[in-house]
Amino acid sequence: MIQKIPVVLMRGGTSKCVMLRAEHLPLAGELRDRLLLRLFGSPDPRQIDGLGGATSTTSKAVIIGPSARDDADVDYTFAQVSVDERRVDYRGNCGNCASAIGPFAVREGLVAKSVPLTQVRIYNTNTHKRIVADVPVDAEGVQEEGDLSIAGVPGSGARQVLWFEQPTGTNGRGLLPTGRALDVVSTAAGPVRATFVDASNPVIFAAAEDLGLLGTEVHPLDGWPAKARRALEEVRGFAAAALGFASDPGAAAAVSRNIPKVGMVLHPADYKDIYGNSIAADAQDITARILSMGTLHQAFALTGAMALAAATTVPGSVAWMAAGKAQRAALRIGHPSGVMQVRLRYDDQGQLVALGVERTARRLIEGTALVPMEATGW
Amino acid sequence: MIQKIPVVLMRGGTSKCVMLRAEHLPLAGELRDRLLLRLFGSPDPRQIDGLGGATSTTSKAVIIGPSARDDADVDYTFAQVSVDERRVDYRGNCGNCASAIGPFAVREGLVAKSVPLTQVRIYNTNTHKRIVADVPVDAEGVQEEGDLSIAGVPGSGARQVLWFEQPTGTNGRGLLPTGRALDVVSTAAGPVRATFVDASNPVIFAAAEDLGLLGTEVHPLDGWPAKARRALEEVRGFAAAALGFASDPGAAAAVSRNIPKVGMVLHPADYKDIYGNSIAADAQDITARILSMGTLHQAFALTGAMALAAATTVPGSVAWMAAGKAQRAALRIGHPSGVMQVRLRYDDQGQLVALGVERTARRLIEGTALVPMEATGW
Repeated sequence: MIQKIPVVLMRGGTSKCVMLRAEHLPLAGELRDRLLLRLFGSPDPRQIDGLGGATSTTSKAVIIGPSARDDADVDYTFAQVSVDERRVDYRGNCGNCASAIGPFAVREGLVAKSVPLTQVRIYNTNTHKRIVADVPVDAEGVQEEGDLSIAGVPGSGARQVLWFEQPTGTNGRGLLPTGRALDVVSTAAGPVRATFVDASNPVIFAAAEDLGLLGTEVHPLDGWPAKARRALEEVRGFAAAALGFASDPGAAAAVSRNIPKVGMVLHPADYKDIYGNSIAADAQDITARILSMGTLHQAFALTGAMALAAATTVPGSVAWMAAGKAQRAALRIGHPSGVMQVRLRYDDQGQLVALGVERTARRLIEGTALVPMEATGW
Repeated sequence: MIQKIPVVLMRGGTSKCVMLRAEHLPLAGELRDRLLLRLFGSPDPRQIDGLGGATSTTSKAVIIGPSARDDADVDYTFAQVSVDERRVDYRGNCGNCASAIGPFAVREGLVAKSVPLTQVRIYNTNTHKRIVADVPVDAEGVQEEGDLSIAGVPGSGARQVLWFEQPTGTNGRGLLPTGRALDVVSTAAGPVRATFVDASNPVIFAAAEDLGLLGTEVHPLDGWPAKARRALEEVRGFAAAALGFASDPGAAAAVSRNIPKVGMVLHPADYKDIYGNSIAADAQDITARILSMGTLHQAFALTGAMALAAATTVPGSVAWMAAGKAQRAALRIGHPSGVMQVRLRYDDQGQLVALGVERTARRLIEGTALVPMEATGW
């Protein structure tokens, strides 16, 4: 029995996302997960018999429907479909696939079109947070072509701004889980000044100079001094323990290689990016690096960028010291592939209420997926 | 400007193939190549902005149209779209994508349906050879579900037999490019008996025992004795020189790592495959291994399997010695992932006229691809 399911494959930021309408799928549960696995060709390291691209950034599904809420136009559920395990993971949102939702919603008529920007209010069911997308639209519909380049995607596309609302305190311990703007962590490299923030994701940022690093490194960790690498892991372990993720700092890796994240910061500095282009100090507000799954991120994790922007608003934090100003409207982060900008929005009391990032998205193919599966219980 | 192009993404054997109708594309040439590159998201190591899957087996396009020939139903052009270079390669056919052509042609109405098998006569423009596909069809159309498992694809599918006609002599030097059924090559491991055949692709097969190997190895080459690895490359170099590809045997690698191919054979022997399953000697007609791009193929290259079947028809060849019979109707090849079968067809004079392989294929998604490209000159 072949099930026919309408799908759109989109690039959202630096991810590929299989876009699905909730009403075309079974309700959340085991049957829907089985369907997603079969649709993607999982488990199989090559995902050769499905739509998956055999990497974590190309094995993502997005489920969208009209929202039941007054303050949102669409409900959006993110599903990370495991490549080689029989598992669909609903922990956390994907900032990149989030950038495909607005254009998709406009195109599918889930929200009324407005030129030149259509605001789409997106409720993410994974994080129970709202994202507001300003989608560029012209007379012909969603605009895809434009001049915004983002690291990790060749060429350029139309600029879409995504506002992640109420981003702080994803672990219920507020913006500063240790209660302090600055901690000093004992490490193999000596005492390291660090700031642990939780905004969009929990991330601890260390002062690059305390690690014995330049802070402008762009090459993989292998070439870094062993002491600095160990110190970074110790700083991360400190944050994991503070969150209650690990019983002691040394056990962080056993719990998760990815959360909390660790990064380092420096005042804006000149350097050459991985393509050999010169990045000038005055094109940045801060120079920063972040690790992803134990290796140097070749650009900057989207959630990490938002956490860093939030950290610069905290006087006394290492990020504030490096960027030199609180209450900014935008933060330009110099990373190994170039410069990424995060926008900041405050309420009348000066409280940070939303973080904005710029992304591009593009429809790659629209059509019908064919999934060999019994319809039992559907 | 967005071009809308009807596409079907299919799994053909162990490859993913983007199926395109010739009439929806520009004529062969620079414009068509530019379109294919943009469609796949190349060049980009991740092919994140296109349909490519970032590996050579998932970056393949197939162009199909009605044939102008009396002896064929459809013309089929295979295009290997480079992942990270601005290049589309039309050298050689792809036996795996070839298995997607018949089902696609039936579905598109390019050939009249006939139950339970519809014969589709396919002219491959890359090799100027004909392939005849026996496509399983039932009242509802092309049958995809069935019980044939092929190495490298999870699950099973409907059995399709593909006959590759007149497979011998792809380099214009006949079935035996050296003119001999058996050559003895001087190598680091001593004299090695080998047979060089050209059928579907040029492949030289060595006697496993002469290489100092068991012949039942299933693990990567790294674990093999250095002498044996060197001898295999020397045997391949001998074949490259015989074809005129390389000025001397030592220069083969500089010309191509893949053509000619090299393999080794043994009489049917018991072994455990890479999954730990026991493969019994009496389930095979020959035990063989083949290299692909300098490493041990984890199953068996389709073209290599056909070359091996052709080699067994030559009395005195190492393949004939290992398999023990010429003029067989089928050859079961024991390889690292299991057993693959090749069928052989002869004319009234006993000449080999076609080689048959079994494959499965499946439509994954059908729809419209969106390609941002000017229509200039189209």
